[in-house]
Amino acid sequence: MDDTLDTGVSFIHGDPIAPVILGVTSILLFAVIGRFAARKLGQPTVLGELLMGILLGNIAWYLGIDLITVLREGPQVFEVVHQTLAGTPIDQVAVTIFGSETGAEIVRIVTGPQGGEVMQVAQTVDVFSRYGVIFLLFMVGLEADLDEMRQVGADSIRVAILGVAAPFALGFAAVTLLLPNIPLNSNLFIAATLGATSIGITANVLQEMKRSRSREGHIILGAAVCDDILGLIILAVVSGIVVSGSIDIAEIITVIVVSSLFLVGAVSLGPAIVRFSASIMGRLDIVEAKMFTSYLFVMVLAWAANLAGLATIIGAFAAGIVLSDSFFSDYELAKKRTVTIRELIMPLEVILVPIFFILMGIQVKLEAFMSWPVISVAAGLLVAAIIGKLISGLGARRPVSKLIVGIGMMPRGEVGLVFAAIGRTLGVIDDAIFSAIVLMVMVTTLAAPPLLKLAIHAQDRREATVD
Amino acid sequence: MDDTLDTGVSFIHGDPIAPVILGVTSILLFAVIGRFAARKLGQPTVLGELLMGILLGNIAWYLGIDLITVLREGPQVFEVVHQTLAGTPIDQVAVTIFGSETGAEIVRIVTGPQGGEVMQVAQTVDVFSRYGVIFLLFMVGLEADLDEMRQVGADSIRVAILGVAAPFALGFAAVTLLLPNIPLNSNLFIAATLGATSIGITANVLQEMKRSRSREGHIILGAAVCDDILGLIILAVVSGIVVSGSIDIAEIITVIVVSSLFLVGAVSLGPAIVRFSASIMGRLDIVEAKMFTSYLFVMVLAWAANLAGLATIIGAFAAGIVLSDSFFSDYELAKKRTVTIRELIMPLEVILVPIFFILMGIQVKLEAFMSWPVISVAAGLLVAAIIGKLISGLGARRPVSKLIVGIGMMPRGEVGLVFAAIGRTLGVIDDAIFSAIVLMVMVTTLAAPPLLKLAIHAQDRREATVD
Repeated sequence: MDDTLDTGVSFIHGDPIAPVILGVTSILLFAVIGRFAARKLGQPTVLGELLMGILLGNIAWYLGIDLITVLREGPQVFEVVHQTLAGTPIDQVAVTIFGSETGAEIVRIVTGPQGGEVMQVAQTVDVFSRYGVIFLLFMVGLEADLDEMRQVGADSIRVAILGVAAPFALGFAAVTLLLPNIPLNSNLFIAATLGATSIGITANVLQEMKRSRSREGHIILGAAVCDDILGLIILAVVSGIVVSGSIDIAEIITVIVVSSLFLVGAVSLGPAIVRFSASIMGRLDIVEAKMFTSYLFVMVLAWAANLAGLATIIGAFAAGIVLSDSFFSDYELAKKRTVTIRELIMPLEVILVPIFFILMGIQVKLEAFMSWPVISVAAGLLVAAIIGKLISGLGARRPVSKLIVGIGMMPRGEVGLVFAAIGRTLGVIDDAIFSAIVLMVMVTTLAAPPLLKLAIHAQDRREATVD
Repeated sequence: MDDTLDTGVSFIHGDPIAPVILGVTSILLFAVIGRFAARKLGQPTVLGELLMGILLGNIAWYLGIDLITVLREGPQVFEVVHQTLAGTPIDQVAVTIFGSETGAEIVRIVTGPQGGEVMQVAQTVDVFSRYGVIFLLFMVGLEADLDEMRQVGADSIRVAILGVAAPFALGFAAVTLLLPNIPLNSNLFIAATLGATSIGITANVLQEMKRSRSREGHIILGAAVCDDILGLIILAVVSGIVVSGSIDIAEIITVIVVSSLFLVGAVSLGPAIVRFSASIMGRLDIVEAKMFTSYLFVMVLAWAANLAGLATIIGAFAAGIVLSDSFFSDYELAKKRTVTIRELIMPLEVILVPIFFILMGIQVKLEAFMSWPVISVAAGLLVAAIIGKLISGLGARRPVSKLIVGIGMMPRGEVGLVFAAIGRTLGVIDDAIFSAIVLMVMVTTLAAPPLLKLAIHAQDRREATVD
């Protein structure tokens, strides 16, 4: 009894938030350094954050930093806590999930004197990173202009469909060839990950080279948005297959119908809800009104998507498509103050998204690459990812450079990572495959900007010769 | 074994963030409704959030909503998880901390099938609310202009000292009289809570009545800032006494020296650090540079304060005093874009602070008032809190209305709540006292605006008569 009371006192040695602040802030600090270095080297920031995560994850783990060891194992670590609290002996749970070696390490950390603190910090990092993904996809949705997309029309849609289908088919073939014993579920999920396109990186390069408003630019940006929507539907289908455990045509159709209905429903009913919310928030300050409306709308749709059996990010993306500053324009006129939704959500994104990227890096286990099968799969995925997206350029029928379009579709960036993270949470993507996917994301993201610049310069030279 | 695997599958039924989103968003939604109602009734928003929390806490607890039951017990619930993971049987821990009845309820929830989820949601709400307090005190610091304070001078300082000392003495006397068996530590902490002043509410009323720039207005605002600093030092001293367990003059002097050194150190060394950070962040976008610098600086100081044995909020407040947009002005000129630190931190504050206030409301146990001693203590604290701050008005020597100054110092608002929350975390403020303090905060905050208006109108009439 006296002993228990004594442990109770350990709680009052300081503010319980202090270790959380230390852990989360340190992780963010490393992410900022990675971002900073990437910017300095003229690379996409996501690369700097990923690479910093990989370094941190592998070095700090090697040095035996408990927090990193826990973060490295991904979301399943928290399952150990849940099941232990429910009464299953902790070593039994840990060994079942992680095998004997890692399991023993996890048990040592969780039951150690700092175990509660480490788990709390890890859980906070995990929650922050997941909120980060939600805001990230919300921002992607916010930037996707449906009207502009309609104008770009058929070329973009063809490029998008090819850009999802070709990498999917090639990826599926490569994995089947290289890992013949892999469960079908995992193979489908990996192939789906290859279809993603990250609009941000290409948009950046195009802008820098003053090509955003070129025909190629319009097609790529339109295709990337279609690609997001197609990708999210494929994600829903593949996740549905994984959860139900079997490929059933009726099931697939159900998922496609549900996700399409969800997106269509959100886009058609959403504006009325936002307008209603904006009108009743009239008593509040404009910052409060916009922030609360946006935040609550994103979160409700994210949660509703999950309820419908879809990924929360689908809801967040739909919220981004629906929300726009125009809902608040009367109101802003009346208050004589303007602040955009983008400006309001940006601070949340700026803090939370780097935590997601660095966490993805931390979860890349370099030791997983110490086997030929993994190296060969990583190489296979990479080739499938590159060729698949180059093929997508063939979808452009107008007189444009199919090569530029194909290269522009190549970077997977954050969207590919989000898919991989979901696969990991669902348990169909293991450490080795996860690491291979992150490698694929990094290489395609790293290679696209210089290749794009080369292709554009080549085009310029050709046009100069024709003149 | 099969059974364990079966539980493992429960994890993949959806995104693990979905229950967190549902819980946190619901709590925020209630807070927004409370804020909205308060604004509609012309009351300070903190009151609406607190009252909504009290309603939610007591009704949802009565209805048996597990999340609310857990949140209601405050931070010690997480200690149950920590100690259980460390190997102590859960019922033993729970009964030691909460007594047999509440303990059994906590054990039922934690070990239940949704236990892990409920605890994760509760922990996220707790972490968000603590981050909220940090940003709140950061904003308070950001608004405190040291140069302006120096000008207001002696009157403000006298009002501040009286405004801390008088309620402290009266509160200490009242508690000694009404609860003669209370530990000295608890009594000191309660008395310290009475000294707080919330600058926001009075500033709002003064602004509304166009008196911000009156002599009374300047004295009150200056005094409220001094009061924040004095209050934080007293908080440090009292916390030091609580943690060391005895009143030792040497100890008290140490704490005063450490906190003064901390504040002075932060204010004198801080600018160089911020300037350095601002200069190396030059490669980043202005939003990123300002946001990362501000966020990291607040968090590092909050953590350093805890390391020095002070409350994290002292660090956050110091960070607010140091940071200013002027550090970035060259940089903003170069980038031709301006965004203030206030604008960047506001979105975080808008989401997180209401979660803190509503959580404080949820932790008010109305059933605690079902005893005469508690009612009498609540009444005693209230009288001490009101009279104490009216006395502070006597500190104003210049020809001003001492009554207006005294009333202006009365609302405790968020600062009183922050103190009470820390006392609860330290274990010196129990449920009944916590509820009594929240009542005191609510009544003083609610009563100040109308009383202030009455006093100002009376002054106007008197001046009109003199003319």
